[in-house]
Amino acid sequence: MSAYQREVLVRFAHCDPAGIVFHARYFEMINGVVEDWFEDGLEVSFAGLLHHRNLATPTVHFTVDFANPSMMGDRLTFSLEVVELGKRSCHLAITVSCRGEERVRVKQILVFTDAKANKAKPIPADLLRRIRHFLNKDAEDRSKK
Amino acid sequence: MSAYQREVLVRFAHCDPAGIVFHARYFEMINGVVEDWFEDGLEVSFAGLLHHRNLATPTVHFTVDFANPSMMGDRLTFSLEVVELGKRSCHLAITVSCRGEERVRVKQILVFTDAKANKAKPIPADLLRRIRHFLNKDAEDRSKK
Amino acid sequence: MSAYQREVLVRFAHCDPAGIVFHARYFEMINGVVEDWFEDGLEVSFAGLLHHRNLATPTVHFTVDFANPSMMGDRLTFSLEVVELGKRSCHLAITVSCRGEERVRVKQILVFTDAKANKAKPIPADLLRRIRHFLNKDAEDRSKK
Amino acid sequence: MSAYQREVLVRFAHCDPAGIVFHARYFEMINGVVEDWFEDGLEVSFAGLLHHRNLATPTVHFTVDFANPSMMGDRLTFSLEVVELGKRSCHLAITVSCRGEERVRVKQILVFTDAKANKAKPIPADLLRRIRHFLNKDAEDRSKK
Repeated sequence: MSAYQREVLVRFAHCDPAGIVFHARYFEMINGVVEDWFEDGLEVSFAGLLHHRNLATPTVHFTVDFANPSMMGDRLTFSLEVVELGKRSCHLAITVSCRGEERVRVKQILVFTDAKANKAKPIPADLLRRIRHFLNKDAEDRSKK
Repeated sequence: MSAYQREVLVRFAHCDPAGIVFHARYFEMINGVVEDWFEDGLEVSFAGLLHHRNLATPTVHFTVDFANPSMMGDRLTFSLEVVELGKRSCHLAITVSCRGEERVRVKQILVFTDAKANKAKPIPADLLRRIRHFLNKDAEDRSKK
Repeated sequence: MSAYQREVLVRFAHCDPAGIVFHARYFEMINGVVEDWFEDGLEVSFAGLLHHRNLATPTVHFTVDFANPSMMGDRLTFSLEVVELGKRSCHLAITVSCRGEERVRVKQILVFTDAKANKAKPIPADLLRRIRHFLNKDAEDRSKK
Repeated sequence: MSAYQREVLVRFAHCDPAGIVFHARYFEMINGVVEDWFEDGLEVSFAGLLHHRNLATPTVHFTVDFANPSMMGDRLTFSLEVVELGKRSCHLAITVSCRGEERVRVKQILVFTDAKANKAKPIPADLLRRIRHFLNKDAEDRSKK
């Protein structure tokens, strides 16, 4: 098990009139990090899945806690791991921190779907195998109790 | 008690390559609806609170379930009520539906803060009084058990 | 000839850390106004054109002058007219103002395309007829000299 | 003279229902590239200029031609150079290409302003000196004729 990590710079365009990251921008950042995890960690791309395999991975759930605000220029560390893995769905835990301070805690559930029919379908075996590398077993055991 | 309701048209710019609303765009819509609730329901504006009273209302929590996808051209009904009201925070329940079908269910927690010091502070009395008009007492009682 | 007009409220989410509308947000507003012009003025929808007639209207050109900044809470008036009409393209002049002060001046060129082949194609006759209602002939004559 | 170059990946969140980059997203990318040019090329940051020197650099003009569409997964090369340099303003030429194909051509004018007073002011000498490294003299000579 290992977490997937990536740094995201807080840009001018992410910040609101109060000078801090506007919450909707975090969801764009999160989507970018999940996209990079697919590409770097799972060795497939959103675009490839959609165009060549008719697979989409819509989000069906978010639980998000904003612990501390982020400012323009902050370099945020996104750390992603899988905390539960079903036949058709994948539960992610993502933490966002900066210089050791927690900024955001996210639980996100992705469902694998037939993009045309918009119906859930099993995660392909090749993907499932690679997703397991990011599975935090302790978290999964806890979540099943 | 009454819910605050508002319609939002799903635009081209809200939709992703799968042809449905991209999740980050829902958070922009939600922010717009909360903003309109402040203006129409609470008779204050985000801008006025920030500039004249140094008050900001950052979101500290979201729980969001995406039940069904929304398409370009859909006219979504956002329905907002207050389900818990603290001294410094306000818990909102927002449901998004279209022609009777539930699309998204949101629980959002706003905290009232001193915008410069970025510290929580009590909700001003005039606002508190008006927020109570949107309080769903049944929901609040349940949430306290 | 008559201009198509629509009001857009400047929201919290449109504004940047300097407290004014961030330029990329103007392009989202412009797209929304053009979308409403199609729906209200031309009696077709972006969604309908795309899904039922395989027609898209990508923008191929923008000239934009930002004359004065806009603030959160401003109610902007967008005024749109057609200044040149070709077989496959349509030149729009859009002005954005607030309480008589000009904020933004836009020239935008839309091309009608086959959405699947991504190639220009003639504007359908029914649309062409309705687009002419918004044609400013003086502007067109000037632009042809 | 040398151009500042940077690569930008086209993400899912940049693309519209037609599967190509939505124009407003290009303006977010452009802002990010200009921000990186300030940081990497001019050795100052947007955030630092704003907070420590009360300097903002709003855009007062854009001329943009969208030559060819970009798809999800494309790695776009943004190439930026200065084509005219005034006392208070800086004209940028930005080209966006992918595998040798031109996608977008941009002319952007930034004005240096006192962020609080929102009035133009001279570009500080240290910045001016570094901006000159990116000045394309041929372009500047042509633009003065």
